Amino acid sequence: MIRTRSSSEIRDASRREVVRALVVGGTATRTELARTTGLSAATVSNLVTELREAGLIADAGIDNAGSGRPTTMLRIDGRGGSFLGIDVAETYIRAVVFDAAITEIGAADVDVDEEWQSIDRIAEALLSAVAQAIDRGGRPAGELLGAGLGLPGLVSNDLRGGASTPGWAAHIRELEERVRPHLPAPLVTANPLQAVGHSEIWFGAARGRSTAVVVNLGTGVGAGIIVEGRVLRGATRSAGEWGHTVLELDGRICRCGRQGCVEAYVGVPGIRHTLGEVDPGHPLLQLHQREFVQGLRDAVADPAVAETLALTARYLGIALSDIVAVLNPEVLTLTGWTAWALGDDLLPAVRAALAERAPELTAARLDLGVSPVRINSVATGMAVLSFEYYLDSRALARRTRPRTDPIPALPVIAPAASPTAPQAVAG
Amino acid sequence: MIRTRSSSEIRDASRREVVRALVVGGTATRTELARTTGLSAATVSNLVTELREAGLIADAGIDNAGSGRPTTMLRIDGRGGSFLGIDVAETYIRAVVFDAAITEIGAADVDVDEEWQSIDRIAEALLSAVAQAIDRGGRPAGELLGAGLGLPGLVSNDLRGGASTPGWAAHIRELEERVRPHLPAPLVTANPLQAVGHSEIWFGAARGRSTAVVVNLGTGVGAGIIVEGRVLRGATRSAGEWGHTVLELDGRICRCGRQGCVEAYVGVPGIRHTLGEVDPGHPLLQLHQREFVQGLRDAVADPAVAETLALTARYLGIALSDIVAVLNPEVLTLTGWTAWALGDDLLPAVRAALAERAPELTAARLDLGVSPVRINSVATGMAVLSFEYYLDSRALARRTRPRTDPIPALPVIAPAASPTAPQAVAG
Repeated sequence: MIRTRSSSEIRDASRREVVRALVVGGTATRTELARTTGLSAATVSNLVTELREAGLIADAGIDNAGSGRPTTMLRIDGRGGSFLGIDVAETYIRAVVFDAAITEIGAADVDVDEEWQSIDRIAEALLSAVAQAIDRGGRPAGELLGAGLGLPGLVSNDLRGGASTPGWAAHIRELEERVRPHLPAPLVTANPLQAVGHSEIWFGAARGRSTAVVVNLGTGVGAGIIVEGRVLRGATRSAGEWGHTVLELDGRICRCGRQGCVEAYVGVPGIRHTLGEVDPGHPLLQLHQREFVQGLRDAVADPAVAETLALTARYLGIALSDIVAVLNPEVLTLTGWTAWALGDDLLPAVRAALAERAPELTAARLDLGVSPVRINSVATGMAVLSFEYYLDSRALARRTRPRTDPIPALPVIAPAASPTAPQAVAG
Repeated sequence: MIRTRSSSEIRDASRREVVRALVVGGTATRTELARTTGLSAATVSNLVTELREAGLIADAGIDNAGSGRPTTMLRIDGRGGSFLGIDVAETYIRAVVFDAAITEIGAADVDVDEEWQSIDRIAEALLSAVAQAIDRGGRPAGELLGAGLGLPGLVSNDLRGGASTPGWAAHIRELEERVRPHLPAPLVTANPLQAVGHSEIWFGAARGRSTAVVVNLGTGVGAGIIVEGRVLRGATRSAGEWGHTVLELDGRICRCGRQGCVEAYVGVPGIRHTLGEVDPGHPLLQLHQREFVQGLRDAVADPAVAETLALTARYLGIALSDIVAVLNPEVLTLTGWTAWALGDDLLPAVRAALAERAPELTAARLDLGVSPVRINSVATGMAVLSFEYYLDSRALARRTRPRTDPIPALPVIAPAASPTAPQAVAG
């Protein structure tokens, strides 16, 4: 159901704008904040007072640069609290703790089996990653103000419980329920596509844009959809499954079990499939996942690789033209490890295929490129989503009462991968 | 650019909600309006006062039914003004005048050549249809408060000026500019897909729903996309071109010049193509457009027709699953003359194909059906869009000054088709 927005919802939206402007911009005067957000000076002033009382905004010195009287510069107080972003991907679970200025202060990865046969193992690995990240962040767990959990919508058939049962939905709920009691802060969940959408709105190509699409390219592929500056979640929180739209009727088998999905052509296994068609004996076919993508990047002069990349760019350009035709976005940005590794090699041909394929007006003024947000897109997106949730009026009102109840111990069950190694966006 | 909504924009949105509730519901008390719209009693009271002063709301008697004291029933005053909706389709132009309660009071059609070789002819035909509709409505042209022009985005190659030039965009602007001076009210334009979206929000399956997709099936096909209860227009007003997304890589030639478009399979010429593949000598292949669709409907027991409809339902179900995967809407509604004629025959197989093809969570709670809004969907949508435009604060403020300047004469150049014959939604 839709309804007219209440005054408290409007105030919540305004509060988010002020916080986002300071997180992204670093410092600003009240006048600058009013200009950036489009809010009135009085509204900005009220919100700044409220956020200072909550410990989230601090003074950052005096601005003497202007022609008028000196004014106070403001900044986010990073010590005002911390936020946790969790990225549940297909080969790893990554937890990242950010301070209130969304600066990373602690991170941990736990590898998971690609087959994911047990909900117990996923829950344990997840809690272990969280415990290590909080420990490395060096802040008491009680200072966490929010946590966000990015959960893929379509993963293995085991967890999905077959092609047409609601098995995976039940597992999502179960995982949430298992994890929630152990987290020292409210937990919000979203799929990774929606998470990268939030990252792009805060820090990337979708900043200040109305309609944007963030396409995530990895093992799996999908799209974060932004309409009127907000991430579209959809009726069952599942919007953005562009990877399972059809590129070729009765085409390649996709790992979702259907035929001809976009993912079966531009996901990493799909790109391997294409190379296998071009040259069935090619040595790169021995490699998997990121090693395979890195191998392609290192061998762009190899004729079979060049042909594979040309075919991939064509598939990708055509598949992107579909989402451009439907949504007519201002911005289309590519993210995820395939995009970061191969984006520069693919973009010219993708652009050409898109120009040829998309209805002309829909692509006429499209701003297409690779995202400036690298590494941790999902974890960052989930952390800022939990920040937005925290900033809603009721949560902020509770802020005056510090949490004193004991927080359940978090289990540590697996050795951590290096927290500084570059990690991919989900799947 | 996005920005925070101003208080006058919020008031405009609230005003639209009150008017829409009365247009759709017929009569209501202030208390009922507050309940329906979610607005406060004070806001409703203020808006009702303002709209009564503007002549748009009148009393509709006293409600004694409740347990409390009797309260005044309100209704839209149909005589408060009129609105014009224009549907520029591929084979006809239809103009419909509505009173302020969105009751049709006059309509006219002018047939146009499918080839549309001249912008002059289109402009003349359009103004002729408008003149006749206003004449039949029996209200002075000066009482028109708004006009809406639905213009297709992708029509013939002649008007598009080739596959990759901005020719058709230039023609849209030219047509708007030719027509605007002759219209006695402000003119808003949208594509027909967006127009049917507005119809569905006001009167159809999208009422009160957040995310909805209205799929228009005729010669051409496309989708009106509704997010958070509002029609998505897109960066260049071109959102919704689902008909030109790809169903089959390197598949059938589409009349847009590209290959494998959804429209080439489920548009009326696409359905003829399918029948031609099933039975190249089938007698129905002698018929075109609506006669062909009617012929299919009358011959569903014919094996070749049955096979054609089964294939069409499969193509449609797969193509719909793509938009469901991306947007995860609450509602998917089919409209346009193919949907009205064949919807009941196609729906079971469409539903099955969609359940098989769409990612399970995205289709899990989808409300799929044929639109209850028939005939004039585009004209109605454009009239309510012009009503919404009129209701914005500045236009309403001007309302106190009645228009007194002479209105340019409208040419009548073509004999009218029967205004009562059922007419299709665009293309």
